[in-house]
Amino acid sequence: MVLSGNAIIAQSGGPTAVINNSVAGVVQTWQKLKFKGKIYAGLNGIKGVLEEDIIDLAYQDKAVIEGFRYTPGAGLYSCRYKVLPEDQKKLINICRKHDIRYFFYNGGNDSMDTAYKTMLAAEAMGYDMRVIGVPKTVDNDLPFTDHTPGYGSAAKYLATSVLETGIDLMSVSTKNKVTILEAMGRNAGWLTAAGALAKRSPDDAPHLVYLPEVVFDIVAFLKDVEAVYKRLGYVYVVASEGIKNAKGEYIAAGGSIDAFGHAQLSGAGDALKQIVEAELGIKARCNTLGTAQRSAMHFASLTDANEAYMVGAKAVELVMAGESGIMVTLERASGSEYVCTTGKVGLAKVANVEKKVPLNWIVPAGNNVTKDFVDYARPLIMGEVSIPMENGLPKYVSLNAALGRLIEK
Amino acid sequence: MVLSGNAIIAQSGGPTAVINNSVAGVVQTWQKLKFKGKIYAGLNGIKGVLEEDIIDLAYQDKAVIEGFRYTPGAGLYSCRYKVLPEDQKKLINICRKHDIRYFFYNGGNDSMDTAYKTMLAAEAMGYDMRVIGVPKTVDNDLPFTDHTPGYGSAAKYLATSVLETGIDLMSVSTKNKVTILEAMGRNAGWLTAAGALAKRSPDDAPHLVYLPEVVFDIVAFLKDVEAVYKRLGYVYVVASEGIKNAKGEYIAAGGSIDAFGHAQLSGAGDALKQIVEAELGIKARCNTLGTAQRSAMHFASLTDANEAYMVGAKAVELVMAGESGIMVTLERASGSEYVCTTGKVGLAKVANVEKKVPLNWIVPAGNNVTKDFVDYARPLIMGEVSIPMENGLPKYVSLNAALGRLIEK
Repeated sequence: MVLSGNAIIAQSGGPTAVINNSVAGVVQTWQKLKFKGKIYAGLNGIKGVLEEDIIDLAYQDKAVIEGFRYTPGAGLYSCRYKVLPEDQKKLINICRKHDIRYFFYNGGNDSMDTAYKTMLAAEAMGYDMRVIGVPKTVDNDLPFTDHTPGYGSAAKYLATSVLETGIDLMSVSTKNKVTILEAMGRNAGWLTAAGALAKRSPDDAPHLVYLPEVVFDIVAFLKDVEAVYKRLGYVYVVASEGIKNAKGEYIAAGGSIDAFGHAQLSGAGDALKQIVEAELGIKARCNTLGTAQRSAMHFASLTDANEAYMVGAKAVELVMAGESGIMVTLERASGSEYVCTTGKVGLAKVANVEKKVPLNWIVPAGNNVTKDFVDYARPLIMGEVSIPMENGLPKYVSLNAALGRLIEK
Repeated sequence: MVLSGNAIIAQSGGPTAVINNSVAGVVQTWQKLKFKGKIYAGLNGIKGVLEEDIIDLAYQDKAVIEGFRYTPGAGLYSCRYKVLPEDQKKLINICRKHDIRYFFYNGGNDSMDTAYKTMLAAEAMGYDMRVIGVPKTVDNDLPFTDHTPGYGSAAKYLATSVLETGIDLMSVSTKNKVTILEAMGRNAGWLTAAGALAKRSPDDAPHLVYLPEVVFDIVAFLKDVEAVYKRLGYVYVVASEGIKNAKGEYIAAGGSIDAFGHAQLSGAGDALKQIVEAELGIKARCNTLGTAQRSAMHFASLTDANEAYMVGAKAVELVMAGESGIMVTLERASGSEYVCTTGKVGLAKVANVEKKVPLNWIVPAGNNVTKDFVDYARPLIMGEVSIPMENGLPKYVSLNAALGRLIEK
């Protein structure tokens, strides 16, 4: 069942805090199982593979790969690049040239599509190569997996931010009485919903949570805000960057730059801040954590980090057992205690499919999530990752991309 | 020297991650020194004192006061309220009624003015009361103190966010090639400058840092961004929310709300994002951490937390030694090792004075800070606070404001 030959791993799309755990899982498992083949990295995702930006990871200091367990960002560098039909032959020929027989692709929906097409191209060209998807995304929108590595850490950071800024809001009642936190996730509200994990008692932040899965009604929103404001004197709103009105238009404030006069749109959070101030006359503030949500390793979920490692390790075991054309999944055991194991699903089924928050986990008024969501998400944020510190900041590692290059450039 | 009578502590203005350490320092030192008088809290700052929203802290569970050492937000609730001349007599009469002889006020510039006026009012009314300012502000703009409690934690969180989102930016070079982080501090650039602490090697984020102390020139900014972009392919900018052009106008994008048509201004970060996209045609992204900067206890500086406690404890010792009308300061010993002790300064000198970043700590081009700044700020972010966790999130405490009320309402 074991093909002789080399392996490659590459990362694609937006990073997560724990995405490099999956690389560490693949590389360390490969090395531990003592396969004869080498383990390469394609730098900058599939784009790097196409450009033969490939390095032999054996040349990296082992501390770098171990450091990937607590380093955010795409450690092998990532890309957003859609493989064109004319790229595919080139891609397979490069794999053939370097005797790459195992192809690990670490990414989200688009990346699973890339992996799938790579597998089809190899098959079409009669090149025996096993392709496996290693999932990641803070958006948690990959289907056929209970959840996706990267989500738990983003959720933990977001919920912590809601908790802390919610305490801040509540403790100063005389200014900025409405706080809006804009959450990542344009089409799926998983990360937005994670804000609800911050609530410890009924009057705690967040009071209102708006997911992109349901239509955003500005009039209802203003009524919601006003009702909470009358009751408590302050309001905490978590809103997805992707909320849309009934016409399907994103909620955004139109703007024109003073200096140059070009029209641009602001984000949903700023739009809601402006609407609250203009329509209700209540001072509001918007926090847009942006890419901090997907890179906050300093407060990542240990559960998430460990699972990200586990899917990487499992990917090696699966391809070694002869599997190909699949993505590793996470499966939650039934029962009250959280137990998570791995499974698999065909890449064809995953590619380009988005999993949204089930509508029955959103309250009928469309302004919050249910306890079912909280019960689902809570185990995913448990535990903290221990990170070495230096000069008061996390001591993250970085790849030495000059070492072990297959082709000198 | 010791006056018999009670003490009160209240908090004012925007919270910090460690502001409650100062309350714990005051309360625990008061209790430890076994003064006969009681220690009260004025809820919602001076406004609460004026409304006799006063509680006896002896009724709080000791775990709450101890929990203040790791709980963000204003634990005693804060306000933004300017004491009016007609309030002062009322205020002193309330103090007299409850035999309050020690008045601890925990706040920033405005609060020191309030404390000063309270002292003057007491003197004018022949009421013997010792007034002391306990400093806090993430803005670090209080004069006559090396730095201010609250700043180190905000600086650590901001620098960590720049480090992490900088790695994120650098690791995905094909989209959002410019990241702008908007930092708090409308008039003083201390927190903005803290972004520079994230830089480990010359090409690391942040590449450009814009403080409100110098005029912001859009044309120079675009040239700066373009130059870094040509060299590296990505650019990380930290900009103060308070940057202004040569005319003294805030850098902001004008907007009009789609739904209602009211004109509003966006923040500086969003304006810069729009300018970069419109003028350079480079995709940009803006992270606005907002109130997370002043409440991120989950990654606060231990040095800062300890110093916040120290100024609270010292305030009790000073008033007991007969001092009044002063603010506790932090003094840094000369020498290469960081050693910080306390000092004092007259409230009259502090009130309403803002300390800005020295211009010789800003590079001549106005787009970064010097090594002198980094050397100044680095010790302030050292160490981490240990926080109990519950359900995957920090287990913060809260005051039970219903216990020990002097006046039932």
